[in-house]
Amino acid sequence: MAAAAGVSITTVSDALNGKGRLPDATRRHVREVADRLGYRPSAAARTLRTGKSGLIGLTVTTYGDEPFTFTEFAYFAEMARAATSAALARGYALVILPATSRHDVWSNVALDGTVVIDPSDQDPVVSELVRQGLPVVSDGRPAGSLPVTAWVDNDHEAAVLGILDHLAAAGARRIGLLTGTTTDTYTHLSTTAYLHWCERVGQDPVYEAYPAHDPCAGAVAADRLLARPDRPDAVYGLFDPNGTDLLAAARRYGLRVPDDLLLVCCSESTVYAGTEPPVTTLSLKPRRIGTAVVQLLIDAIEGVDSDHPVEQVIPTELIVRTSSQRRPPRTTVSPPRSPKGS
Amino acid sequence: MAAAAGVSITTVSDALNGKGRLPDATRRHVREVADRLGYRPSAAARTLRTGKSGLIGLTVTTYGDEPFTFTEFAYFAEMARAATSAALARGYALVILPATSRHDVWSNVALDGTVVIDPSDQDPVVSELVRQGLPVVSDGRPAGSLPVTAWVDNDHEAAVLGILDHLAAAGARRIGLLTGTTTDTYTHLSTTAYLHWCERVGQDPVYEAYPAHDPCAGAVAADRLLARPDRPDAVYGLFDPNGTDLLAAARRYGLRVPDDLLLVCCSESTVYAGTEPPVTTLSLKPRRIGTAVVQLLIDAIEGVDSDHPVEQVIPTELIVRTSSQRRPPRTTVSPPRSPKGS
Repeated sequence: MAAAAGVSITTVSDALNGKGRLPDATRRHVREVADRLGYRPSAAARTLRTGKSGLIGLTVTTYGDEPFTFTEFAYFAEMARAATSAALARGYALVILPATSRHDVWSNVALDGTVVIDPSDQDPVVSELVRQGLPVVSDGRPAGSLPVTAWVDNDHEAAVLGILDHLAAAGARRIGLLTGTTTDTYTHLSTTAYLHWCERVGQDPVYEAYPAHDPCAGAVAADRLLARPDRPDAVYGLFDPNGTDLLAAARRYGLRVPDDLLLVCCSESTVYAGTEPPVTTLSLKPRRIGTAVVQLLIDAIEGVDSDHPVEQVIPTELIVRTSSQRRPPRTTVSPPRSPKGS
Repeated sequence: MAAAAGVSITTVSDALNGKGRLPDATRRHVREVADRLGYRPSAAARTLRTGKSGLIGLTVTTYGDEPFTFTEFAYFAEMARAATSAALARGYALVILPATSRHDVWSNVALDGTVVIDPSDQDPVVSELVRQGLPVVSDGRPAGSLPVTAWVDNDHEAAVLGILDHLAAAGARRIGLLTGTTTDTYTHLSTTAYLHWCERVGQDPVYEAYPAHDPCAGAVAADRLLARPDRPDAVYGLFDPNGTDLLAAARRYGLRVPDDLLLVCCSESTVYAGTEPPVTTLSLKPRRIGTAVVQLLIDAIEGVDSDHPVEQVIPTELIVRTSSQRRPPRTTVSPPRSPKGS
C-alpha cells in the first residue's frame, strides 16, 4: 500500500487515521490509492498497532474439563453480571469462556486480559495466559506461586471463624462442615480455618467433602453428614445448595431446625429468606467482586496508575436468620419488639 | 512449510492434525520440520478450515451509540445469564458486546453468530452481520424487513391488552401509559396495542414517552404523567423502574395506591414484591428467552435440522399484587384467610 502510493508506512497510517501533520493533497492521494486497492487496515493489524482489542475474558477454571455451566449458581451469575456492567461501562466486551471446549475458543479471540474465578493451585489456564504476557486478575487469592496481575477476594478465614463462633454462641457443641474437593483457595482456606478452630476449641472435626459442581453429590454429602454416628448439632456448608440439601436431610432424620440442628450456608440466593425455616447465609458480595476484578483488569490493560491496591479484600456479610438461632428458653425475658412487629 | 518438508499442503495438515493415512515416517518428518521452523497453524487458519470459532455474540443495539450498561436492568441480566448457561452447556463462549465501542471489538473476534436484543427497525448492526453471512437471532421480532435467521419474542399485544382489561376490571376509567421513544418492536407493539385499546373502548390516550435507557428520564416522565390535567387513574409502565418511579410520583401528588391510582409495570425485579404497596408486574420470562435464542443460534450455526420453529413465542405472566386491586368496599364479605395468615 505504501509502495503503491509512493509514501512511507507512517504516512499511510497517518493519512488513513487522520493523524499527523500531512499536506491535504498527500492525505487525499493516500486515500485515493487506498480506495483503488480496496485497502482496509485489518483488525489484526490495528490490534497489533494499538495493542488493544477491547475484549476481556471471564472464566471459571477450578473444575477443569468438567462441564460446568457456572452461571447456574447465584454467586457466579451475580459476579458475571457486575463484571459485564463494569466492562461495558468502560467500552469493553466481556467474553465468558468455558475453561475447555471442543472449539478452540481461546485462540479465536484476541483478549486484552482475563478474569479467572477460583483458580486451582496449579492452574494451567492462568499459567498459559501469563506466559502469553496477558494480564490476569483472579477472583480468589492465588494459591502457591500462581502468578497473577491482581486479585480480589474475601477474608475467608475470618468469615468461617465468625460463623463458627456464631454457632457456638447459639449453643452448638459439635459443628460439622460441608466442603469441596477442589484446590481453589476458597475451599482450601475455609476448610483449614475450620480445622484450626476445631483444634483450638478441642472439638473433633466432622466434615464431608464433595465435588461442588455436582449438585447431586451435595445432596448425598449432606445426607451422609447427618447419618454419621458422631452427628453434628450444627453445620456450615460452603456452597449455595447446601442449605436446602441440609434441610431436606434433616427432615429425613427427623431433626428440627434450629432446635436439633443449627444451619448456616454460604449463598447469594434469596431462596433462603423463604425456606422453612429461613436459613442464615454468608454473602461474599459477588457484585462488588465482579466490579473490582474488571476495574483492576482494565486498569492493568490500560497501564493506568491505579488508586486500587492490586490485592483487594471485600468484606463479607452474615445474614442471620432463624436456622442459626436457638429459641430462647421460656423463662427468658422476651426481646423488645420492633415497631413493625416481631 | 509444505515446501520446506517437500510434501503437499494436505499432507502437512493431515500430519499435524493426526488425520489421513500417512506412513509414520512421513508424519514424523513433517512434525520435525514444523518444530524446526516453529510452525504452528494459526487460529485464524484453523477457524477458516473448520468454519467455526466456538464464539457467539450477544448485544443490545436499540440504543445505538448511547452508553448503556444493559445488565443493570433485571430483564437483560436474567436473559444474559440464561444465554451464558445455554452457550457454555453446548461448549460455546458467549461474547457480550457493546453495540459500539472506541475499540473495534466486533472485528477482533471471529463470531459464529450473534444474538441481538431489541433491534430497531433499521438496525445497522444486524444488517452488517447478515451481510457477512453470519446467523443472527433476535430477541424481539424484527420490525419491517430486517433479515434475521430466527427470532424469539413474547406476544406483546396480547400481554398489553390483558393488562388494560385487568385494570379496567379493577375499576380504572382512564388508563395511562409510560412508554419509550425507541423503534424496537417491544416498545412499538406495546404502544400500538395501547392506542388500539383506547380507540376500541373510547378512551383518550394519556401517555408519556421517554428514552428508556436513561433512568432519570423515567422518573421525570412518571412525574409528568401524574401532573397532567387529564391525570390517569391507572398506569401501565413498559420498563423496569417505572413502578418505583410511579410510586414516588404518586406520593408527591398525595395519591394513594391502589385507592386513587392503580399500577402495573413490566419488570423481572423481585423488588416489587416488597414495595409499599407491592406492585403488579408483567414478566416476559427472560430466562426462557435467553435459553431459546442461544439454542436457535447454535442450531443454525451447526446446521442442525431443528425441532424448534424459527419463530418462537414465549408466554408472559402477570403477577397480580396489591397495586392493581381496588380494595373491596367494607360491606363485602371477607375472602377466606389462608392457613398461614393473611
